[in-house]
Amino acid sequence: MTEQSLTRNIYLHDVPLDEAIADWHTALGAAGLLAPLGKETIPLTEALGRVTAEPVWARISSPHYHAAAMDGFAVRSEDTRGATETSPLLLRLGEQALPVDTGDPLPAGMNAVVMIEQTQPVSQDGAEYIEILASSAPWTYVRPMGEDVVASELVIPANHRLRPQDLGAIAGSGHSVVSVYPRPRVAILPTGTELVTIGSELKPGDIIEYNSLMLGAQAEEAGCIVTRLPIVRDDYAAIRDAVAAALESHDLVAINAGSSAGSEDYTSAIVQELGELRVHGIAIRPGHPVVLGLARGKALVGIPGYPVSAAMTFDLLVKPLLYRWQGLELPEKPTVQATLTRKTLSPLGEDHFLRVTLGKVGDRLVATPLAGGAGVLMSLVKADGVVQIPRFSEGHDAGEKVRVELMRPLSSIDSTIVAIGSHDLTLDLLADRLRQGQPRRSLSSAHVGSLSGLLALQRGEAHLAGSHLLDEASGEYNTDTIRRLLTSNGVRVVLLGFVNRQQGLILPKGNPKAIAALDDLLRDDIAFVNRQRGAGTRVLLDYALAQRGINPRQINGYARQEYTHLAVAAAVKSGAADVGLGILAAARALELDFIPLFDERYDLVIPVEHYASELLAPLLALIRSREAGFAQAVEALGGYGTAQMGEVLAEL
Amino acid sequence: MTEQSLTRNIYLHDVPLDEAIADWHTALGAAGLLAPLGKETIPLTEALGRVTAEPVWARISSPHYHAAAMDGFAVRSEDTRGATETSPLLLRLGEQALPVDTGDPLPAGMNAVVMIEQTQPVSQDGAEYIEILASSAPWTYVRPMGEDVVASELVIPANHRLRPQDLGAIAGSGHSVVSVYPRPRVAILPTGTELVTIGSELKPGDIIEYNSLMLGAQAEEAGCIVTRLPIVRDDYAAIRDAVAAALESHDLVAINAGSSAGSEDYTSAIVQELGELRVHGIAIRPGHPVVLGLARGKALVGIPGYPVSAAMTFDLLVKPLLYRWQGLELPEKPTVQATLTRKTLSPLGEDHFLRVTLGKVGDRLVATPLAGGAGVLMSLVKADGVVQIPRFSEGHDAGEKVRVELMRPLSSIDSTIVAIGSHDLTLDLLADRLRQGQPRRSLSSAHVGSLSGLLALQRGEAHLAGSHLLDEASGEYNTDTIRRLLTSNGVRVVLLGFVNRQQGLILPKGNPKAIAALDDLLRDDIAFVNRQRGAGTRVLLDYALAQRGINPRQINGYARQEYTHLAVAAAVKSGAADVGLGILAAARALELDFIPLFDERYDLVIPVEHYASELLAPLLALIRSREAGFAQAVEALGGYGTAQMGEVLAEL
Repeated sequence: MTEQSLTRNIYLHDVPLDEAIADWHTALGAAGLLAPLGKETIPLTEALGRVTAEPVWARISSPHYHAAAMDGFAVRSEDTRGATETSPLLLRLGEQALPVDTGDPLPAGMNAVVMIEQTQPVSQDGAEYIEILASSAPWTYVRPMGEDVVASELVIPANHRLRPQDLGAIAGSGHSVVSVYPRPRVAILPTGTELVTIGSELKPGDIIEYNSLMLGAQAEEAGCIVTRLPIVRDDYAAIRDAVAAALESHDLVAINAGSSAGSEDYTSAIVQELGELRVHGIAIRPGHPVVLGLARGKALVGIPGYPVSAAMTFDLLVKPLLYRWQGLELPEKPTVQATLTRKTLSPLGEDHFLRVTLGKVGDRLVATPLAGGAGVLMSLVKADGVVQIPRFSEGHDAGEKVRVELMRPLSSIDSTIVAIGSHDLTLDLLADRLRQGQPRRSLSSAHVGSLSGLLALQRGEAHLAGSHLLDEASGEYNTDTIRRLLTSNGVRVVLLGFVNRQQGLILPKGNPKAIAALDDLLRDDIAFVNRQRGAGTRVLLDYALAQRGINPRQINGYARQEYTHLAVAAAVKSGAADVGLGILAAARALELDFIPLFDERYDLVIPVEHYASELLAPLLALIRSREAGFAQAVEALGGYGTAQMGEVLAEL
Repeated sequence: MTEQSLTRNIYLHDVPLDEAIADWHTALGAAGLLAPLGKETIPLTEALGRVTAEPVWARISSPHYHAAAMDGFAVRSEDTRGATETSPLLLRLGEQALPVDTGDPLPAGMNAVVMIEQTQPVSQDGAEYIEILASSAPWTYVRPMGEDVVASELVIPANHRLRPQDLGAIAGSGHSVVSVYPRPRVAILPTGTELVTIGSELKPGDIIEYNSLMLGAQAEEAGCIVTRLPIVRDDYAAIRDAVAAALESHDLVAINAGSSAGSEDYTSAIVQELGELRVHGIAIRPGHPVVLGLARGKALVGIPGYPVSAAMTFDLLVKPLLYRWQGLELPEKPTVQATLTRKTLSPLGEDHFLRVTLGKVGDRLVATPLAGGAGVLMSLVKADGVVQIPRFSEGHDAGEKVRVELMRPLSSIDSTIVAIGSHDLTLDLLADRLRQGQPRRSLSSAHVGSLSGLLALQRGEAHLAGSHLLDEASGEYNTDTIRRLLTSNGVRVVLLGFVNRQQGLILPKGNPKAIAALDDLLRDDIAFVNRQRGAGTRVLLDYALAQRGINPRQINGYARQEYTHLAVAAAVKSGAADVGLGILAAARALELDFIPLFDERYDLVIPVEHYASELLAPLLALIRSREAGFAQAVEALGGYGTAQMGEVLAEL
């Protein structure tokens, strides 16, 4: 440990991804760590999914004797010669015909089997016979020895992942065990004084430690034996000792977090002290503070702390090694071409891994980038795929074709309904119900506000948009904007009633600042949190402010934008704001106070071709059928009316 | 149990596949057995791959407080206004700037973070400051509460198979457990007096019981908890009691074998006694003697005994149910269009599931049906896919396009070298070595004899053919036939030296009938086993017989054909024949005697476009490089010479 390593190391030295991998692999290769880590012999009952370390040659033939292939009688082919329907032959039981069941060995001297269905028992002169109506060629209905496998034949090659039928074939060729590569032993060490275990009581600053759960699951998926070590606080010696202990009994140790260059980032120094630090910092987004090294003949890595960075760097850097150790090639991820819906900027010099959702809208597969940085794990939960933007590119324009590595099968993407627009909690409820339906559908909804949703429909990027845009002139919801943005551009839509909902002021529990109405937003002691431009709630607010002659610039916090009702409620809950405008459901969800101001309509806008599609049929049925119980579930949330749910309000 | 059910039930009543499934499912549905079998709550650490039984709603927000997103200093945005590179601002440490690390809660009153890299420490007038060169907008480098998930939001819907990132998101939203569908409990009951456990000493008639290993592995792959029950002999009461006991603690019991209608086939009667027999016999090939029923509120099936039938009927009938019970849809198997290489007859009235190997030969994907009946498990091991021929079809002609359900990824099929032709043990060795190489290749070899191999090259169905065809006129190997079949048809090939090998008489150990030469084949007391027409060994034999003036018809057994050297050796080993013609390696493998008669050349015939291809390069390198050790391994087998291995003998 150097003095410097204990001080605040501000700069990493990011190297390009391919150089980082090459450098690490060179060192791993020199240590014999790029190939399988030995062999072990295990019983076949435990070998499913394991990879053969040696070829399997048949010890015995299968069958290992000539076997009857039918229930019937073993005969000599010669004795059956000349038998026909018109001149049947009798074969004497016990001499010329011996009863056999399927699998029985062919009795000595016999060379064919006659099926029982093709015989008749006959008693004649005190003896028993069978009558046959056809001759049997030699070896008819006989499974000759070695029909399946002949002793010494290759049954399964080395480096083969064992499937159920392979296990059967290995057993059938005389083995009860098989030589396979050992499962890699992987230890995940979570470090950080701020970390608490899953299920702990939380105070501000506590971070629930779930990366080891996730990274461990990734290693398990890759076939490893995983040890999730207890959390170690940010203490150089404590972490070093835990790593050193883990290296004793594991093939790879992953230290989670502390891989950057902050005052409590010890990973690189620890790798350096215990072994060989090869890489500290890779020019990838997300994930650049990665540490790659080795120590005591084992692989040792530092994984960044942000969950998306953690998951993606593990996948990108560690998983290929885990596969190599098992003699497996990394399965190629299937890819598709899709049209990017938004311009995406990408930093020159960094390989950028962009999470996207995919949707089949009409004939086009569209890819929508997911918002959120390396801390937004939901972006990885919701992602359908990843677009890799190489380091020499500055990104892509909207409408460009991009190659997407799929994270779920294309067939399930084909059955996904893409909603872009205003967010409402009832869409989550709808999504959950849809997945339980038969036929099943997924509803993928991006929360961008009503106006952006309608623009997405204009560009053909979504199947439907939730919208609650009040037209100030007509007092109507949605129709004016639809005419202007969609109808005039040749996009014909159905305006479908969905929910009525209460919009109002979301306030801290007990309303400590005694806010009563919109006018209170002008007060100096009050910080407001706003919705983004284009959101229906924002339009409603601006309309109401204009009616009251209030200048928005006078409202403290008017410029602070959140993108969902729940985010507004969260801002109020946390004390970051004193009041926001939103729906009752959001206030209720976070146990906040609520003063209703308006009752508004939240409709679904659906282009006619999707409205009539087989894809949307289950969604429409769910919305319309009172029996399905969806409307009741919505009303149970409180603050919602469902009188117009499923009603066609207009065709535009 | 009826009297009749204990007697020999000769006929099943085969019903079409879709009717059988519909009938069984109707009964299962009525018993509540077509939906998941309940719910259970399990810790997240055990939930990888499990399927949510309920949606997961966020209990808490993530982050659950406003968090610093960078190492640096928490500040008030207002305090930073006006700072630029030319007019920096000083913020007093401890008042206007509070040090924070990534993840720390934003101190009360602060609303932005300045990255440490963008500050300089300054001491002035006895106080400590940081100098900043730019203003910070509110919420810069702050992860607001709920950035990832807001309390009450939908995190994961029901019926979702949990991936690593899902586990992280569930933990991050305040849960330590999750409600999932239980894993189905499946019992496999092997029945049959002739069955012995894996690893037993064998006598003729013993059948190694490996179906329970294979079926159990299939159920494990489908996510089940599997009990492999001990073998029960063919005894009605014993089997019935074992089934009844298994039904107590399992959701599905599969009785293996006894599902036909032979004298010891008790399955259907047992299902009838314990519960409800719905189907006995399905018009599918392989697999028709299937029993489907239910008993005591559980599913109860009888699976046929032949291993291919067992595996395929389990896959076709049981697996979809196991998926349903876990709230999962059966993943669609990827399919490809391929050209069938051989005419395939298919019985009218039966759905026929044809195992094929696939190869990308030039631009064409070709599908070659695998020989072997329901007892040839290697056909399922070697299969790349399955062609389903519906019951109203009589089959397909060679050259027809067929739809193939893939059993391995297309990418691995693209890296498969297809060999069709004469069999030699050294091809198995080559296949195993190829799989261990970098880049890796598979070698799929079909054993059809030299002549059929060359014909396959003529039709563009293979990358290479092993051939040892002696031309009687010229005494040359292969060249004459190649000119006649390939060159004259515009197929240009490279004739590559591979091995020289000894052909001779394969005899029982100790040569009990004192066979010494070819002339002995004429003896009355001797049964010969021949190779099939077109095999190089057959040509050699016919050539030698002709030279000696021997009429083949005088040889007892001349008409009995086997397709490989090892099959010939197996026939001799089993006593079915007294002598055969083949190679030393086959005799050695089965510990038989051998009298060498000829030394012959076994070459590889490779069309020029494949010879030059990237696909075959690793194979050619392996054959040619003495360092790779392949030639030495071949010589170690005995009876082989490798002097010409890898040499271009002719370009034709």
